Amino acid sequence: MSFSIAHFLAERRDGAVHRREDLLEFARLAGSKELPDYQISAWLMAAYLNPLSLEETVGLTLGMAESGERLDLTGLPKPWVDKHSTGGVGDKTTLVLLPLLAACGLTMVKMSGRGLGITGGTIDKLASIPGFRTDLSSQEMIEQASRIGLALTGQTPALAPADGVLYGLRDVTQTVASIPLIVSSILSKKIAGGAEVIGLDVKCGSGAFMPTAEAAEELATWLSKVGKACGLSLHVTITDMDQPLGQAAGNLIEVLEAFRVLSRQALSPNEKRFETLCIELATETLVAVGQHDAKAVVEKALDDGKALEKALEWTSAQGATTSPLDLTLAEPRQTITATQSGFAQQVSALRVGEAVLEMGGGRKKKTDVIDLTVGVVTLVQVGDKIEAGQPLFHLHGNPDQCAAAAAVLQDAVTVVQAPVEPRPLILKRL
Amino acid sequence: MSFSIAHFLAERRDGAVHRREDLLEFARLAGSKELPDYQISAWLMAAYLNPLSLEETVGLTLGMAESGERLDLTGLPKPWVDKHSTGGVGDKTTLVLLPLLAACGLTMVKMSGRGLGITGGTIDKLASIPGFRTDLSSQEMIEQASRIGLALTGQTPALAPADGVLYGLRDVTQTVASIPLIVSSILSKKIAGGAEVIGLDVKCGSGAFMPTAEAAEELATWLSKVGKACGLSLHVTITDMDQPLGQAAGNLIEVLEAFRVLSRQALSPNEKRFETLCIELATETLVAVGQHDAKAVVEKALDDGKALEKALEWTSAQGATTSPLDLTLAEPRQTITATQSGFAQQVSALRVGEAVLEMGGGRKKKTDVIDLTVGVVTLVQVGDKIEAGQPLFHLHGNPDQCAAAAAVLQDAVTVVQAPVEPRPLILKRL
Repeated sequence: MSFSIAHFLAERRDGAVHRREDLLEFARLAGSKELPDYQISAWLMAAYLNPLSLEETVGLTLGMAESGERLDLTGLPKPWVDKHSTGGVGDKTTLVLLPLLAACGLTMVKMSGRGLGITGGTIDKLASIPGFRTDLSSQEMIEQASRIGLALTGQTPALAPADGVLYGLRDVTQTVASIPLIVSSILSKKIAGGAEVIGLDVKCGSGAFMPTAEAAEELATWLSKVGKACGLSLHVTITDMDQPLGQAAGNLIEVLEAFRVLSRQALSPNEKRFETLCIELATETLVAVGQHDAKAVVEKALDDGKALEKALEWTSAQGATTSPLDLTLAEPRQTITATQSGFAQQVSALRVGEAVLEMGGGRKKKTDVIDLTVGVVTLVQVGDKIEAGQPLFHLHGNPDQCAAAAAVLQDAVTVVQAPVEPRPLILKRL
Repeated sequence: MSFSIAHFLAERRDGAVHRREDLLEFARLAGSKELPDYQISAWLMAAYLNPLSLEETVGLTLGMAESGERLDLTGLPKPWVDKHSTGGVGDKTTLVLLPLLAACGLTMVKMSGRGLGITGGTIDKLASIPGFRTDLSSQEMIEQASRIGLALTGQTPALAPADGVLYGLRDVTQTVASIPLIVSSILSKKIAGGAEVIGLDVKCGSGAFMPTAEAAEELATWLSKVGKACGLSLHVTITDMDQPLGQAAGNLIEVLEAFRVLSRQALSPNEKRFETLCIELATETLVAVGQHDAKAVVEKALDDGKALEKALEWTSAQGATTSPLDLTLAEPRQTITATQSGFAQQVSALRVGEAVLEMGGGRKKKTDVIDLTVGVVTLVQVGDKIEAGQPLFHLHGNPDQCAAAAAVLQDAVTVVQAPVEPRPLILKRL
């Protein structure tokens, strides 16, 4: 029986099971714009309410991955590696992990997205480096990865076009928050991007898409199972996103923090927490590809300057006209201080993300233009002993931007009298 | 709070309750094409899976009725009456009921649809009368109803445009079979059409949209409750559609049968069954508007020729260039006979409808062009004693058409040995 969209819609509506070949064909037709939007969106709503099974999600994922071009890395040194984070506040991990792992000998190829809402996007952060190009073609990606071991580009409509179509419709039909649809969206792009080994960081907490541990674990489990069924070598880590990652949240300000970590400069406690995550995730990836003494290899690449060297080689290869090491930020304009003494029970990643958004450092809607120079520096973390009057946040921006951020940050830090045990940075490994 | 389509979609998705003002606004925006199809169709799928409550259905119905023009019958003699059937095989009731009730002094205004699938459309049947116009404007409708007491037109995009948009999308997104959506579609058009008193005939059986008694009763109950809550004076009748209504199924052939009933000619048993339904439904409507001795009034309008006179006045007013009494059909080309003796347990309306469809007398898809001259005559009814070799059906069409119909009609009549008690024509009154 050939594919019938009417039959396919009725199946999803009634919670029946789609055939593999129908899922592949649906994804192909969606990607080639041969199906009208109104039928795809009716299916998306039905799929939200009658979720796909794991087996069906594998079919959809493979169909979406095959709906356009696929990056062919043949000839590049293996392993071919990619990483993905579900997104959070201050999450500039890609900026460290890519050159760090490339310095350890892996071939790193990655497509990154732009930010929306409180979650920043790697593409926006990199745009704060003058001249840095995020529009590499497939050919340029392969050429550069072959030459220096890493390449990153913005999402291109040529790879997994079905995901572009489905995601665009989910965004406007209230069907984003469906685990099978999220999983197929993430993994189809990874598969089309050509990598075989993938590190996935599922963020969990107030500043993440998955606020609860249960939701994060469900997503992580699905990613792991579907990824493996699709033939990927995949390791998934669930990490904390209740408080911001590192001290910097914004765009240029996050690039500077990433290079402080890559340069092995003296770090603040919040920066150290970010460095720890980078080293942990890099180590896990190296373990996954069979590296002995993985952690020592990672530390060495940082200590002997190879990671920094690779990072500068990378930014230069992608067109940067200024070395990130020469970039600076104006002094902070405003400082928010503690109004009472005690212990920090909460340092809200959500509020910090909202503050950056209010300053114009993020997008409320897709067409917003971002101010790349604004940012929030978080000076405390959960469990810290707090003295009244002590600085909690530095704000970088003009007076209006700082006032807007300050209003949002009023209740960002909760201070209690009893000591607080922070939850671990790494919550679970799958 | 002003209307937000995102919020409205999330409410339906989560099975929450829509506010009345949001339902009105949604219908208005759908009708004025201010909402994209993909958001409407996502809502329709959510509404299929999380059905609207009765109260919400009232809101949607009123919103759809108000989404365009409304026929203003002010100045025309009251009562203003309309009738509706959910559709079946051989259902030419409108052709009799409109002139019959107009002859009894009621003002009859009606919009009718075209046929799709096994269900014929009144507009198609009337199109077999040369010159008959089914594209009257609102102004022409009012003028003609004022002059001769009745007017009928095809559906116009000016009235209840939201229904046109929603129905068009339901048709291609597998969301047709939802009681609240069916009810709002039917009633919104009736309200926009200006009538205050409405007779509704819900067909039940193999040749109807509602095959089971339970489904038909649920639809009838919803129509009755929502209609009353919308301020309509409504009477609903559930009638049998397991076997075809009357003997004729097709287009011109049904017009001829209607005029045989209006002319009080000698009728076959199947024609008599159709006549009985017309008289019953006309009587119910007259009772509903407070007429004493309603049945006698109906019989008199038929007996003294007033109903026929009104029918001829009507077809002439709408442009007919030939009197329906002068129209004829070619002799039947083929006869299907019984292969065994016994009693007719089933005379399938579904099969007869399919046979007409195969002959080209109906539409498989909306754009099909109909052959108005083909038809099937059903010569037996459920409960009849059958002799092997006795004619069951006459077929009107060319040899290919008749062969196609004959194939479908092979198992249309089930003959059993024990006597069969037919189910009543009128199953329930609400």
